[in-house]
Amino acid sequence: MRSVNVVGYGNLGQSLVEALRGCVGFSLQQVVIRSSVVGQKVEVVRSVSELKPAELTLLAVPDDALAEVSAQIPYSGLVAHCSGAKNLDVLHAKNRRGVFYPLQTFSKEVQVDFSKIPLCIEAENKEDEAILEALAQAMGSRVYHLNSPQRAQLHICAVFVNNFTNHLVAVAQKLAKEQQVPFELLMPLLEQTFEKIKQMPASDAQTGPARRGDMQTIEKHLNLLSDATDKKIYKELTESIFRYYGKKL
Amino acid sequence: MRSVNVVGYGNLGQSLVEALRGCVGFSLQQVVIRSSVVGQKVEVVRSVSELKPAELTLLAVPDDALAEVSAQIPYSGLVAHCSGAKNLDVLHAKNRRGVFYPLQTFSKEVQVDFSKIPLCIEAENKEDEAILEALAQAMGSRVYHLNSPQRAQLHICAVFVNNFTNHLVAVAQKLAKEQQVPFELLMPLLEQTFEKIKQMPASDAQTGPARRGDMQTIEKHLNLLSDATDKKIYKELTESIFRYYGKKL
Repeated sequence: MRSVNVVGYGNLGQSLVEALRGCVGFSLQQVVIRSSVVGQKVEVVRSVSELKPAELTLLAVPDDALAEVSAQIPYSGLVAHCSGAKNLDVLHAKNRRGVFYPLQTFSKEVQVDFSKIPLCIEAENKEDEAILEALAQAMGSRVYHLNSPQRAQLHICAVFVNNFTNHLVAVAQKLAKEQQVPFELLMPLLEQTFEKIKQMPASDAQTGPARRGDMQTIEKHLNLLSDATDKKIYKELTESIFRYYGKKL
Repeated sequence: MRSVNVVGYGNLGQSLVEALRGCVGFSLQQVVIRSSVVGQKVEVVRSVSELKPAELTLLAVPDDALAEVSAQIPYSGLVAHCSGAKNLDVLHAKNRRGVFYPLQTFSKEVQVDFSKIPLCIEAENKEDEAILEALAQAMGSRVYHLNSPQRAQLHICAVFVNNFTNHLVAVAQKLAKEQQVPFELLMPLLEQTFEKIKQMPASDAQTGPARRGDMQTIEKHLNLLSDATDKKIYKELTESIFRYYGKKL
């Protein structure tokens, strides 16, 4: 039975604590929670310095805090961060260092099912890699071995695929509201968009005025968009589609 | 039984012809197909001038051709275009004019199920509106009455929700390939993105470095992006998210 400490109790920390409860071969020992939280069925401490030694320590803290927190851990052992953006060596060199990065968008509203999440792991040696792999598998996750440059690229892809697409939908929802167009009208299109991506490369699924080079419609849309930022997004993405498919600007 | 002619046999035209076959109360009479197509179970003519009078004529031709084609129809009757971008009055005034706009992304690879498509209709009088509504219902579609300005706004929303999001996924697929990161890794995230949008407003689901104002990660990503167009998209969307959530640039 390997002991695990978790540092941090934000969206990701809570999901990890939840997932660790049922993990065969691993036992959740302590959680560092700075603010007071009631009803936890695990030992809670307020700072990293109070942690008892554990075989694995998972850091679910903001990226900017990783260097400092990893320097404060009062025992030696495997320490893994959960960040897509940070290299392995952001962690203090006194630790055996690793990365345990679940690729997903975490939020308190939606319960995360680790069995559906790809887990990207990295470590400095095979033994530590095996520990992280065993935990990921115990959580039911699919395991991927990525080095830091690959993970950084993956994180950029995640920004495009989740953050940016979600924001475009937010903009569309705002625009629909402005003209009293019910957004439910757009849900089947959104569903179809997603279904197509499952079936073919996105570049094969591309349609619309930019793909067709339909300048009349593009001009009409730009004239109708009243917000300067929305206009800029429309322009940049249209030009990017032009470029992607070899149309002239 | 109302007779229907269809002009055009691209992605949309083919889907309409397919959907019309089983429509109670409507009978497909003729289809105008300029290029030769074999194996059609419907009367095919090569030009609009050869059409026999029909109660309803659906124009599934490029937006730019609508004015000209609608002027050539050799009989009087209800003529509806299927464009999201064009106003009703793009059609020649000698016709009884209408719009029959199925909001979806059409392509030959994926069979379109009209029963899952919202149909936006518009006409100059109640009687014609009723004919278009009856056809939409016979196809199993959900009917929405939108005027031309609302439809134009809806079309812009569709560009954001489908064309632009799809393009962002295409860019992500290109970036993943460059670093040999398997894109399948990103599919659960994409699925989660879509699931969240079904459950809450997209603005509530927004996460990521731009939402958090995580400048370190944003700078890192911009440095890693080698293509100038990708960099510009990243910047514009990040700034748009900043603005949306009141962060400083």
